[in-house]
Amino acid sequence: MVETLSPVLSERVERLTETLLQEANDAGLMLATAESCTGGLLASLLTDVDGGGHVFDRGFVVYSEHAKCELLGLAQQQIDCCGAVSRDVAVAMAEGALAASDAQVALAITGFAGPGAPGDEPGLVHFACAREGRDIAHREEHFGDIGRGGVRQACLEVALEMMVAAVR
Amino acid sequence: MVETLSPVLSERVERLTETLLQEANDAGLMLATAESCTGGLLASLLTDVDGGGHVFDRGFVVYSEHAKCELLGLAQQQIDCCGAVSRDVAVAMAEGALAASDAQVALAITGFAGPGAPGDEPGLVHFACAREGRDIAHREEHFGDIGRGGVRQACLEVALEMMVAAVR
Repeated sequence: MVETLSPVLSERVERLTETLLQEANDAGLMLATAESCTGGLLASLLTDVDGGGHVFDRGFVVYSEHAKCELLGLAQQQIDCCGAVSRDVAVAMAEGALAASDAQVALAITGFAGPGAPGDEPGLVHFACAREGRDIAHREEHFGDIGRGGVRQACLEVALEMMVAAVR
Repeated sequence: MVETLSPVLSERVERLTETLLQEANDAGLMLATAESCTGGLLASLLTDVDGGGHVFDRGFVVYSEHAKCELLGLAQQQIDCCGAVSRDVAVAMAEGALAASDAQVALAITGFAGPGAPGDEPGLVHFACAREGRDIAHREEHFGDIGRGGVRQACLEVALEMMVAAVR
């Protein structure tokens, strides 16, 4: 059962969390996260189930660009070139989290949660999920201008769906 | 205003979050976190305020012992010797987060959120807060067996109090 965060989650997100932790445990897989716009919310969810947290290895909250480069091995040039919110950066974050952890499955999130600089699209989020020995999965979502809280919650559902698919 | 997490927070925690982000901004200080039992909840809170997240550099969710060693430079021997939930490990985590980030203030949390192995005291949490050029602050809290959710929420308040003191 999800504890701390239950009041802010949909039933579906709670169910997906429990499914993911159970199936990762059954498959002997460890999980890692690399989060930008969600800022650790996914990691805090995956460690919020009593007795489920042992499948979670570590999480990287890479809010600044320098953190993305230092912790996950991205090149600043790649961020400058593609933009921090892009398919390429999400994929590089997931690959970096896999390489910099003991996990076999890593999920990366980068997006615009709220209004940012002119030209940023509120609600645009790129996700990437890496599993050792498989091709990387990518999803691009346009949640729209539904507010910072709404975008961050919507991100959880997509991230969990991708991680559940990856552990199967 | 705190967005995603507001329903699970006390008014005091919301106020402390806003105070911390404002005062860190005014002082030109960047923040980092190193979390074990809270699993990213503090980082997700510090990135949950529209327009406030730019003072947050990065967060380390070091759930496994190996993650504590690899990301924050702890020695496995130190964890074996003192226990993962100890003053020494909390202090080393805060020092490690300061060294491995661009932040000037780093807060570390390690504790037992829920029932663990025999001998673990539910609700025992050690906090350390490091600010460049100052002595490290430490707090040991015994929140009691109030459940995983209760402990994690109680941790936020102590962590924020220590960070507010550190930015002043």
